[in-house]
Amino acid sequence: MKIRVDLLPHRQPESAYRDVVVLIDVLRSCTVAPLLFDGGLEDLYLSPSLRRARAFAAQEGALLLGERRGLPPEGFNYGNSPTELGQVDFTGRSVVMVSENAPQALPVVSCAQHVLLGSLYNADAVVRRALALAESEVTLVCSGFGGSEDLDDALTAGYLAARLRQQAPDSNLAGAAPMAVSLLKVFPDPLEALWQSRAGQTLRQLELQQDIAVAAFVSQSERVPQLERQVELQDSPLFHFGAAVA
Amino acid sequence: MKIRVDLLPHRQPESAYRDVVVLIDVLRSCTVAPLLFDGGLEDLYLSPSLRRARAFAAQEGALLLGERRGLPPEGFNYGNSPTELGQVDFTGRSVVMVSENAPQALPVVSCAQHVLLGSLYNADAVVRRALALAESEVTLVCSGFGGSEDLDDALTAGYLAARLRQQAPDSNLAGAAPMAVSLLKVFPDPLEALWQSRAGQTLRQLELQQDIAVAAFVSQSERVPQLERQVELQDSPLFHFGAAVA
Repeated sequence: MKIRVDLLPHRQPESAYRDVVVLIDVLRSCTVAPLLFDGGLEDLYLSPSLRRARAFAAQEGALLLGERRGLPPEGFNYGNSPTELGQVDFTGRSVVMVSENAPQALPVVSCAQHVLLGSLYNADAVVRRALALAESEVTLVCSGFGGSEDLDDALTAGYLAARLRQQAPDSNLAGAAPMAVSLLKVFPDPLEALWQSRAGQTLRQLELQQDIAVAAFVSQSERVPQLERQVELQDSPLFHFGAAVA
Repeated sequence: MKIRVDLLPHRQPESAYRDVVVLIDVLRSCTVAPLLFDGGLEDLYLSPSLRRARAFAAQEGALLLGERRGLPPEGFNYGNSPTELGQVDFTGRSVVMVSENAPQALPVVSCAQHVLLGSLYNADAVVRRALALAESEVTLVCSGFGGSEDLDDALTAGYLAARLRQQAPDSNLAGAAPMAVSLLKVFPDPLEALWQSRAGQTLRQLELQQDIAVAAFVSQSERVPQLERQVELQDSPLFHFGAAVA
């Protein structure tokens, strides 16, 4: 088994994704996703485009959730705050989520056989699910922040890579996995890395510190959002996730 | 002043390179480059293509130097070993260099105003030169290894970012710079990071450990290879470097 980490989605055709991809965006969309399913959510759609998200939500009667620069766009039902969303009952509802990093990565990784959303919040569950699905390779793909590598996702990738290796001791670490794992020595408490990351700095400026604390909780959820299909909507796809329980 | 680190060349048009780029490939081509100029070299051409390198060297009477999978290709005058090349007198010669990582990055970064080659070997000189040239931003771009982020270049970027910041205390760290700098805590001795990197593992398998040791020497050279022009040769450019002394 190969455990690879990419600190950003790799867009070169020669590194095309196969087998299992775990997409990471720990601050905040991949922390929010399992938490929504814990709150009873039925269907989650991720959209890179605000306009398409609005059109699809209107058409399907789905709730609109997400952020631009950390805050909910006009007309949205909710922002992207796990602190707030943990209080909401989503039983039987569908949600269209817009955010700035993970949805942009989905068109790059969606060629993989299986795409899961991973964070610290569902760490153990995502590790079990990835190993159950993988034939030969689990690739942990960091969404990054504003098109650059960021510490929060890199540390989370390091944590997941270390857990994967514990569960599959014959596996080898590829790509940026050794670097990501070595970050665990600098940040034995993940909260510190999330706090110092650029994504974390942005949340602190918006006085959303509590969201960083929620995102640093490890293995609170057993839900693993898994890509089921792409919905082609004019020129921009939506990505439909259901929840697997590992 | 902004000090940015990219752990791989970023190919998205929105992160197009401007101002000063320091391209890093510490194992081994950006360690070899200043060392060649120390040995009297006049002109250095980097080529992503083996075939073009051969044609250009034959046409110009230049020496061929470089590697594929760590070893010199057939008909080359030299490999890419700093241990070997440090012994050679290159006075008045031109060299065409082929290697697997830095030359592939050059087409991506060559839109910047100034492109320098940086390593630990010319660390202080490259820091001084970058700060002398920069208007507002120095971007340290890691070549990586086989299309993935690697520890050797990331640690070198962290070292250079920390030195840049010492010299320009008002600067701020952007992109992956905070992550790269934090690696210095795990690897206070750069040799250890170079040793553990995938590039380093490959050299160890080829019994080229001594090259890792040479690449870990800090600030041995005052030469800063600087991109002067692209030579368009049929469909593949060659990149011509001269040596600035910082």
